[in-house]
Amino acid sequence: MRGHGWRSVLRRRRERTSRNGTISFGPMSGMLFVVATPIGNLEDITLRALRVLREADLIAAEDTRRTSKLLAHYAISTPTISFHEHNSRQRVPELIGRLEAGAKVALVSD
Amino acid sequence: MRGHGWRSVLRRRRERTSRNGTISFGPMSGMLFVVATPIGNLEDITLRALRVLREADLIAAEDTRRTSKLLAHYAISTPTISFHEHNSRQRVPELIGRLEAGAKVALVSD
Repeated sequence: MRGHGWRSVLRRRRERTSRNGTISFGPMSGMLFVVATPIGNLEDITLRALRVLREADLIAAEDTRRTSKLLAHYAISTPTISFHEHNSRQRVPELIGRLEAGAKVALVSD
Repeated sequence: MRGHGWRSVLRRRRERTSRNGTISFGPMSGMLFVVATPIGNLEDITLRALRVLREADLIAAEDTRRTSKLLAHYAISTPTISFHEHNSRQRVPELIGRLEAGAKVALVSD
């Protein structure tokens, strides 16, 4: 994924927005949360993880079907979007756009 | 704690109860649960950990005051007993006695 990861997109944005060499990510007022989720037992999730998933505007999930089961179990209705190695080139700019627009995005990986 | 840990007590019990060299822990029908608890944020605890603490007959805690705050926060009324390096010589046989009597014991360490 050389050149298409978070880091390189952030770097390009930063270069575009910085004027005097200061490190700046522009008006990115949103927040990215990396959330650990259970491998097997659905009980193996923290209260904080559930709250973050519930309060997020969007959940970027490696496997949306798997994540949907978790969300359904806890009656969490936050929308999900697939995010995996085969669509990250397209998704990273999308997600950064959402973050810049102030969204809270939770990232869930299997 | 040479000779006074769980292992040595279990070994002595085993030697006392085994007859034909089989490994046996006697009528130990209880269960010992090792429960991970939050270091800082009280939200950083899993639903399973809360259930185990709630359903246990006894919580052996390294620091009962600290653990009591956690339990009070989640309205868990399971009795606690202190269990740390300075009283383990006395406590280990007690706790094994409880386990043999069928108790569910949760072990919480800081």
